[in-house]
Amino acid sequence: MSGRPIITLLTDFGLEDPFVGVMKGVILGINPEAQIVDLCHLVRPQDVFEAAFILGISFEHFPPRTIHVAVVDPGVGTERKIVAVEAHGAFFIAPDNGILSFVLREIAGEEEGFCPKPREREIKPPFRAVRISNPRFWRHPVSRTFHGRDIFAPTAAHLSLGVPLEAFGEELGTLNLFPIPKPRYEPDGSIFGHVVHIDRFGNLITDVPGDAVSEKAVIQIGGHMIRGVCRSYAEGEGLLALVGSHNFLEIALKDGSAALALNARRGQEVRIKN
Amino acid sequence: MSGRPIITLLTDFGLEDPFVGVMKGVILGINPEAQIVDLCHLVRPQDVFEAAFILGISFEHFPPRTIHVAVVDPGVGTERKIVAVEAHGAFFIAPDNGILSFVLREIAGEEEGFCPKPREREIKPPFRAVRISNPRFWRHPVSRTFHGRDIFAPTAAHLSLGVPLEAFGEELGTLNLFPIPKPRYEPDGSIFGHVVHIDRFGNLITDVPGDAVSEKAVIQIGGHMIRGVCRSYAEGEGLLALVGSHNFLEIALKDGSAALALNARRGQEVRIKN
Amino acid sequence: MSGRPIITLLTDFGLEDPFVGVMKGVILGINPEAQIVDLCHLVRPQDVFEAAFILGISFEHFPPRTIHVAVVDPGVGTERKIVAVEAHGAFFIAPDNGILSFVLREIAGEEEGFCPKPREREIKPPFRAVRISNPRFWRHPVSRTFHGRDIFAPTAAHLSLGVPLEAFGEELGTLNLFPIPKPRYEPDGSIFGHVVHIDRFGNLITDVPGDAVSEKAVIQIGGHMIRGVCRSYAEGEGLLALVGSHNFLEIALKDGSAALALNARRGQEVRIKN
Repeated sequence: MSGRPIITLLTDFGLEDPFVGVMKGVILGINPEAQIVDLCHLVRPQDVFEAAFILGISFEHFPPRTIHVAVVDPGVGTERKIVAVEAHGAFFIAPDNGILSFVLREIAGEEEGFCPKPREREIKPPFRAVRISNPRFWRHPVSRTFHGRDIFAPTAAHLSLGVPLEAFGEELGTLNLFPIPKPRYEPDGSIFGHVVHIDRFGNLITDVPGDAVSEKAVIQIGGHMIRGVCRSYAEGEGLLALVGSHNFLEIALKDGSAALALNARRGQEVRIKN
Repeated sequence: MSGRPIITLLTDFGLEDPFVGVMKGVILGINPEAQIVDLCHLVRPQDVFEAAFILGISFEHFPPRTIHVAVVDPGVGTERKIVAVEAHGAFFIAPDNGILSFVLREIAGEEEGFCPKPREREIKPPFRAVRISNPRFWRHPVSRTFHGRDIFAPTAAHLSLGVPLEAFGEELGTLNLFPIPKPRYEPDGSIFGHVVHIDRFGNLITDVPGDAVSEKAVIQIGGHMIRGVCRSYAEGEGLLALVGSHNFLEIALKDGSAALALNARRGQEVRIKN
Repeated sequence: MSGRPIITLLTDFGLEDPFVGVMKGVILGINPEAQIVDLCHLVRPQDVFEAAFILGISFEHFPPRTIHVAVVDPGVGTERKIVAVEAHGAFFIAPDNGILSFVLREIAGEEEGFCPKPREREIKPPFRAVRISNPRFWRHPVSRTFHGRDIFAPTAAHLSLGVPLEAFGEELGTLNLFPIPKPRYEPDGSIFGHVVHIDRFGNLITDVPGDAVSEKAVIQIGGHMIRGVCRSYAEGEGLLALVGSHNFLEIALKDGSAALALNARRGQEVRIKN
């Protein structure tokens, strides 16, 4: 691709402090040609799984060789690893805490429901991972609390200049990944799915693929029943179900928040009868 | 103009999800040279009129040939049209729901007070509008809920590459536009205006032109009376009136929110005696 | 430096209005090659000291010759000065209200505790300051309420094109600066410091340098006692102390907000016994 190298930023830093701006300053100091794009900075503080989901539905919409930097990192300053991964034609710089689970869903494995802990998984080609351990590419002195500025940002900037992955540290054989939630399919044709993500509008995104749900399906969640799947938000009334932009079944409330109305939480069960 | 083509984004997507970031990824995948500027993403959900006002006071501050993308689109997934408009030397990509009313105020017409419904208006030169209907420029498959990603963003990117307007779809003869609120001028010299917009600070922007108000005017709103027009926020005390940056009369509260203090709402009447 | 000139923006404009986007439009209309970076737009409204702190911990992470624009400006439209300053290899455009205090800490002077008023200080080489008074570089007509758009943005854009500092106005001999808070060191080795800043996570940043605090120090704040200084947020339990990314002692609450838990405020005293 021609054009300037793209670096995306995904954090839980919020927008009330200059943390994100400072990371951009560090990147541009190393590679003035970097094109920096904010993916999201309002991940719920320390919610690694939410960040993993957001990254998983976003990265494929960026051009090849985009560098995605994800800093939701409750373990900053501890012995947790920081990794650089090449996958699906893109690069990812992140703590090894499960935040790459949806990006690497092929090796993360699947499991019913929501598992709050990542597990060690073997990394195999075509995926590659290195531990970021070569301090040559870092900002010094390295603080104990802001590795986004001191390690993630400069690593991304050097990677965008063409420094090869192996220069940043030693190859890794495993990564910690959350199992990807999957629904249970019953012999009678009913499906037990789960709420995987709650978006800004209070829409509930589930792990049930859109093509597994018929137009006339009956959906049960938290004591409520929804009859039929709408084709758009505008079409329905009250609580409604539809297939969202990432092709999963979604529960929404017309002109309101389904999450508030249902007091919903991640992992909550959704039952579908086709 | 030399330089990279500018694309602005105005949405009600909020900043808690990666929707805006994903639109940028799609744009940069098509035109890596695009310069993307966030206009605002915290429009009140589905508040088309607010977005129309924001776009109307903003677009003229951008360079010629800027492409403005406005996605406040309660009708997404229904049969509502998406349009591309050339006006005032710039381009606009938006749903045909009234969001271009202030941009096209010359043809939107004026009406006293606040009208909650757009009306069909004839488009005439020098304005041009096409219906975006040519799927060749879209991202596929097109989802039912995220046309920002699948239609608006790729259309803007192709437009920024120089694809002519007519390539995106057939010419339109009409658009839906809100009438622009205008004040009533009484024979005794008094003016009845309206609150058109409430900004982040709780300032109330009215439809009364600054040059229609004398320095010693008496302003009445919601049972309160303000004597005289200040020259700056710093100059006044308590509730104050001044001419804002878009040349309309504004009501503000020193060190506070006039909107909260007055429990103000859009469309509320303001009376001015010069 | 090669690459496009960088302009950062720091304001209290919030993100609910198009004010920041409009400033970017004005800048790009003058210099299409400008690289604009948001530093922060959620400074508490009119909190000049907070903006001064944020700018002070941020500017040094940007490349040389970056132009920093800071618009927290309660005096907009009054006779307050707008200034352009060259310092530490960078440029600053700001109202003369104390917002450059931490940038110019060498001449701001130090004082115990938190002083709510700036003082007049003499500017000496290598620092330079001019009053922005040459309307040739402004957007016209100049509004009384939005100098960010009409004066700050176009000045920054012209500066980024290489217009020399002295073209914007006459040299200044003094600036208004807050004294920088400093701790008191007692003969018995104890230190009385102060909360200088409260970040998004509710962490309390103090004026006590990290290297003045031993690992086993006992910290008292608001009736609470913390024993020992942690090396990371993850390591501690409950209320904890650590050295933050700008090398000052910080008070945090594990998985919570220290600011809320302690009902903390800027200027509050913190006592350290090594």
